[in-house]
Amino acid sequence: MAGNSFGQSFRVTTFGESHGRGVGAVIDGCPPRIPLSPEDFERDMSRRMPGRNVYTTPRKEPDKVEILSGLFEGKTTGTPIMLFIGNRDADSRPYEILRELFRPGHADYTYYRKYDHFDFRGGGRSSARETAARVAAGVIAGKVLAPLEIRVKAYTIELGGVRVEKMDPDYMEGNPLYCPDPKAFEDMEKVLSETRQKGDSVGGIVEVRAMGCPAGLGEPVFDKLDAELAKAAMSLGAVKGVEIGAGFEAARLKGSENNDPITPEGFQRNRAGGILGGISNGDDIVMRVAVKPIPSIALEQDTIDRAGNRAKLGLKGRFDVSAIPRIIPVLEAMVKIVLADHYLRSKSLGSL
Amino acid sequence: MAGNSFGQSFRVTTFGESHGRGVGAVIDGCPPRIPLSPEDFERDMSRRMPGRNVYTTPRKEPDKVEILSGLFEGKTTGTPIMLFIGNRDADSRPYEILRELFRPGHADYTYYRKYDHFDFRGGGRSSARETAARVAAGVIAGKVLAPLEIRVKAYTIELGGVRVEKMDPDYMEGNPLYCPDPKAFEDMEKVLSETRQKGDSVGGIVEVRAMGCPAGLGEPVFDKLDAELAKAAMSLGAVKGVEIGAGFEAARLKGSENNDPITPEGFQRNRAGGILGGISNGDDIVMRVAVKPIPSIALEQDTIDRAGNRAKLGLKGRFDVSAIPRIIPVLEAMVKIVLADHYLRSKSLGSL
Amino acid sequence: MAGNSFGQSFRVTTFGESHGRGVGAVIDGCPPRIPLSPEDFERDMSRRMPGRNVYTTPRKEPDKVEILSGLFEGKTTGTPIMLFIGNRDADSRPYEILRELFRPGHADYTYYRKYDHFDFRGGGRSSARETAARVAAGVIAGKVLAPLEIRVKAYTIELGGVRVEKMDPDYMEGNPLYCPDPKAFEDMEKVLSETRQKGDSVGGIVEVRAMGCPAGLGEPVFDKLDAELAKAAMSLGAVKGVEIGAGFEAARLKGSENNDPITPEGFQRNRAGGILGGISNGDDIVMRVAVKPIPSIALEQDTIDRAGNRAKLGLKGRFDVSAIPRIIPVLEAMVKIVLADHYLRSKSLGSL
Amino acid sequence: MAGNSFGQSFRVTTFGESHGRGVGAVIDGCPPRIPLSPEDFERDMSRRMPGRNVYTTPRKEPDKVEILSGLFEGKTTGTPIMLFIGNRDADSRPYEILRELFRPGHADYTYYRKYDHFDFRGGGRSSARETAARVAAGVIAGKVLAPLEIRVKAYTIELGGVRVEKMDPDYMEGNPLYCPDPKAFEDMEKVLSETRQKGDSVGGIVEVRAMGCPAGLGEPVFDKLDAELAKAAMSLGAVKGVEIGAGFEAARLKGSENNDPITPEGFQRNRAGGILGGISNGDDIVMRVAVKPIPSIALEQDTIDRAGNRAKLGLKGRFDVSAIPRIIPVLEAMVKIVLADHYLRSKSLGSL
Repeated sequence: MAGNSFGQSFRVTTFGESHGRGVGAVIDGCPPRIPLSPEDFERDMSRRMPGRNVYTTPRKEPDKVEILSGLFEGKTTGTPIMLFIGNRDADSRPYEILRELFRPGHADYTYYRKYDHFDFRGGGRSSARETAARVAAGVIAGKVLAPLEIRVKAYTIELGGVRVEKMDPDYMEGNPLYCPDPKAFEDMEKVLSETRQKGDSVGGIVEVRAMGCPAGLGEPVFDKLDAELAKAAMSLGAVKGVEIGAGFEAARLKGSENNDPITPEGFQRNRAGGILGGISNGDDIVMRVAVKPIPSIALEQDTIDRAGNRAKLGLKGRFDVSAIPRIIPVLEAMVKIVLADHYLRSKSLGSL
Repeated sequence: MAGNSFGQSFRVTTFGESHGRGVGAVIDGCPPRIPLSPEDFERDMSRRMPGRNVYTTPRKEPDKVEILSGLFEGKTTGTPIMLFIGNRDADSRPYEILRELFRPGHADYTYYRKYDHFDFRGGGRSSARETAARVAAGVIAGKVLAPLEIRVKAYTIELGGVRVEKMDPDYMEGNPLYCPDPKAFEDMEKVLSETRQKGDSVGGIVEVRAMGCPAGLGEPVFDKLDAELAKAAMSLGAVKGVEIGAGFEAARLKGSENNDPITPEGFQRNRAGGILGGISNGDDIVMRVAVKPIPSIALEQDTIDRAGNRAKLGLKGRFDVSAIPRIIPVLEAMVKIVLADHYLRSKSLGSL
Repeated sequence: MAGNSFGQSFRVTTFGESHGRGVGAVIDGCPPRIPLSPEDFERDMSRRMPGRNVYTTPRKEPDKVEILSGLFEGKTTGTPIMLFIGNRDADSRPYEILRELFRPGHADYTYYRKYDHFDFRGGGRSSARETAARVAAGVIAGKVLAPLEIRVKAYTIELGGVRVEKMDPDYMEGNPLYCPDPKAFEDMEKVLSETRQKGDSVGGIVEVRAMGCPAGLGEPVFDKLDAELAKAAMSLGAVKGVEIGAGFEAARLKGSENNDPITPEGFQRNRAGGILGGISNGDDIVMRVAVKPIPSIALEQDTIDRAGNRAKLGLKGRFDVSAIPRIIPVLEAMVKIVLADHYLRSKSLGSL
Repeated sequence: MAGNSFGQSFRVTTFGESHGRGVGAVIDGCPPRIPLSPEDFERDMSRRMPGRNVYTTPRKEPDKVEILSGLFEGKTTGTPIMLFIGNRDADSRPYEILRELFRPGHADYTYYRKYDHFDFRGGGRSSARETAARVAAGVIAGKVLAPLEIRVKAYTIELGGVRVEKMDPDYMEGNPLYCPDPKAFEDMEKVLSETRQKGDSVGGIVEVRAMGCPAGLGEPVFDKLDAELAKAAMSLGAVKGVEIGAGFEAARLKGSENNDPITPEGFQRNRAGGILGGISNGDDIVMRVAVKPIPSIALEQDTIDRAGNRAKLGLKGRFDVSAIPRIIPVLEAMVKIVLADHYLRSKSLGSL
């Protein structure tokens, strides 16, 4: 059944496969008269682009976003915006082996079991390439949010076992991992380099922060803001965990430690992560996500073929060592999509 | 905007407040000819009932589920099932103080900011009482799932800092925390007793496991099974974190450690938590959620009144020390609702 | 699959059967702080009530609306409003014959084929009794629309072959058919009386007019305002046709006759029925619906039993001769629900 | 707010404008393993193509459908199918006058009022060109329905005041109006020719029939099959009325005349139009729609400019005299989309 749309008032539907004609998104519900141009996508698309740094695969993907509908004389019209990102130079021959073998940790096996027919080239629909469409949609979400002056930032706080010890926002912007700690960044680089040499991959943790978000976003009881953020994050293939505010640490706190005292100047701390009862409280919204190690590794692994026979699989080619630098703009995009949707939803109550 | 429904094919809409006439759910999309009686709800409703054990508030709530529509001659008709759970003896006088003061850690402040008018008695709509309707809906979800013979079990693996060291499924069923480790259970009881005396509360971690789930449930790309489970769990007010399979631990693993090798007999391990690419893989589905400490505590806290003035608040009355024993049937219900919805959704593909 | 909800931003879900415990609606998405009391429903519920006049069945249905959630201190809270209308004195014994026989013109046969199990008492879920919940929901929709000062009026323009020749709005309010023409009303009464004596029933045409509706309501391209109105009307069991503005007459006009010329003072005529391209144009919205004769008649009819054997069926009891007086408040309610939903939807664009 | 999607299980989202880059559709929820090729679209796209006969504008539109996602090795994958139809040679200069003037009978005025910014070239999003995407989506819907062996046929039964008197299905296929009556066809051609010379346009009535539809399609109470068909039809800009079965004629019948007696061999007649209580009864589904005359006419009309000043507008160029030959494949497509959606929805009940 249909499952490729996200959002109610600001609705994003994505389509496309890794080695098909391209990927893209239809954005339905974007307000009219918002200035938009193809250049607006460049920054975020290039941040997501592989080959941007040493940790990511050097396969070139220009990822140029074409606006095929919904724009007139440089402004949105209020009708669906179709964004298309063509695939280029996508050589699918290296994937021929996947016609028979399932890659461990990937969706190959489950797609095969669900659909009994799937585009195995580069993972097809299950490929992280689909997230290019989300980043493009996130750019528009960001424009919808412009009146609220919200800033959304994602950054690495742990990678391959190395944790960040200090927060330097300026340093964060200047390194490919968006790591806010110079010492930790150095250690992370070492881990990445070593892991690459071993033909393995590493996971990590990314924190996303939405600053400047007004109180009142989120719809009880099922469409709570944190519930929607959790869904948004967990809908990324690499994400295995999500926490808001104190998160799993809250499980170890007392109520007197976890409750954020309220003062005339605002909350005394932010264990809640900016959300109470599913509604934003005006403080920073803070989410952390666990990113699993990239399942594509050169090391040989046990698997089976479609007939169920035992097999070995060692993937050839140059793969990302970690999903982390590239997942950062994707997470920012998903958070912006959730916030834009809830901003527009809130308007129907007259509350914003 | 509307936000009180969950599910597409099996759709649950809840309503009601803590100290209003009652709470309930409308289930739309339940297949016909499923035997159902009011007694079917008793076990789960009593598991959720406060006063069931020493850790939970002794306030009596009979929580009798009335089936007000959708049933004929003992079987579902395929039309909406309305379940109503009346509130009784709900004395709202102790809550009069909340007319002016916001309770830290609760939704009072955000509801007030969003709606500028809210039923403050016992949290109104934001009360955990709403989850009684979810448990009732979960009973019906369980019946929808009957042909698949899935078993869903939730149990405490950490509480107040005490972690479970061993898994004894039989022991689990015999104690109020559904704790699978006798030694840990003893320590948890001590923590609960001490915390209660101090007028404070504690958090913990609950694991939910769906056993016997076939491969093929879940809809890429946004309605992934893990994304929907994460939303379902995070839509509970007390939940601050969700992880699937290895979860946050996956962030510290290598790809070679995190990928589950595939063999003709099945997966060699279950770091994936039974889900790959958003689709169930036939293994146990494993989710863990972080439960924050109950925000209602007797200890005095800083807060403000509606006019923004500094105030102190120490809640009178007997509150739960932890949400955990009661959240267990609620989590099981939410998991069953997600699985029932995706089971029915899968049928439209002819895949199950 | 779920199909008992209507609307996106203002979402109405109905439940209940003719001879079960009752019928009702959950309204999700109603803005907060709207004054509401049980008395607000009385006028419309009594207009829908059978036994109100000579043409309708004298079976007593008090149709008292209980507000079971979503209200606090006399005002809506922004959370789901549950409206319940209990069934009383519903003697289902006369319907026992329907356990075996399908009534021609009713949903008995199709429900049986679809669900293989249905509540046949008075039509169960397919009964017009379900519309009581719609009327109740329509009262709340009317309150949501209050800032726009829209008036919605339905009235009979044809019944049993008698057509209205003149429009006297004052006369309309004073007769049970809401017929705007005294002479036609007299003739309609004659037809109704004669038809009743013959044990038969008659159909008719009702026109609904929404006056004072601003330009800009309606969402292209599928959720056009006229498309949603058509669905709303056709979702009533008795309705077999819907037209907007000139409607079927437009099929016989030239473009030069059907286009409404535009002037600085407004449209020169209203063949469009107040909607262009699916969006309201500021003129009166005009819809007409064809109401089929009530299928329950005393005259003997050919039918079959569940085993497929030939049978005769002549219904005993006192039935309505026409659905028309009672369908009038229902149609008004459905139009108000559509407009309220689109009013709230429009707000997310900032256009209203 | 989002309004460009149709269907729940089989969901079609369209995008695009008349003189933008193109139009298209994303189909989400299509089952996997259905053979599909670009050639499958040719027949229906050419039937919708202008310039196909003397009554329609000779502007060339190749309307080639590109399948940009969701297909692998000639079969659907169960993931979103993106269909794109590029616009070619779309000279927008003739539309420059519409930058200031509103065309009577068109959506120009309402789009301007709603969005305060719109693509006026050829009507932009409100253009009938959008229906090319619906026809393409309808081809896929037809393939989803293949197991049911349903045939959907639309044909002209009235045009410019000329009504069909006999039904010759063979003749129907051989003329551009799909008119089943040779004599009526001749008269219709005369009317079309005369109207064209006068610079005017004509409306008509199209009947659509779905043959071979099983009993059980349709979801009470709001998503009744007839309600969804009515919405589907009325969501076409040219449609002003919809009727099912006896339709408006039912308003003039007695219950004894309108009820279809049931026999062991089936219904004795089909006044119901194949639908009872919103669920298909196994008989032919019969819908008629009123098609308004094309609003674009050469005759001079009164209008206003954006500043509200009085103006005259006589459109230059060669326009269709009637929407009818081209709307026929569009109506068939919409009916197929509704049926495919309800077929998949029914599967979740296990009823089909």
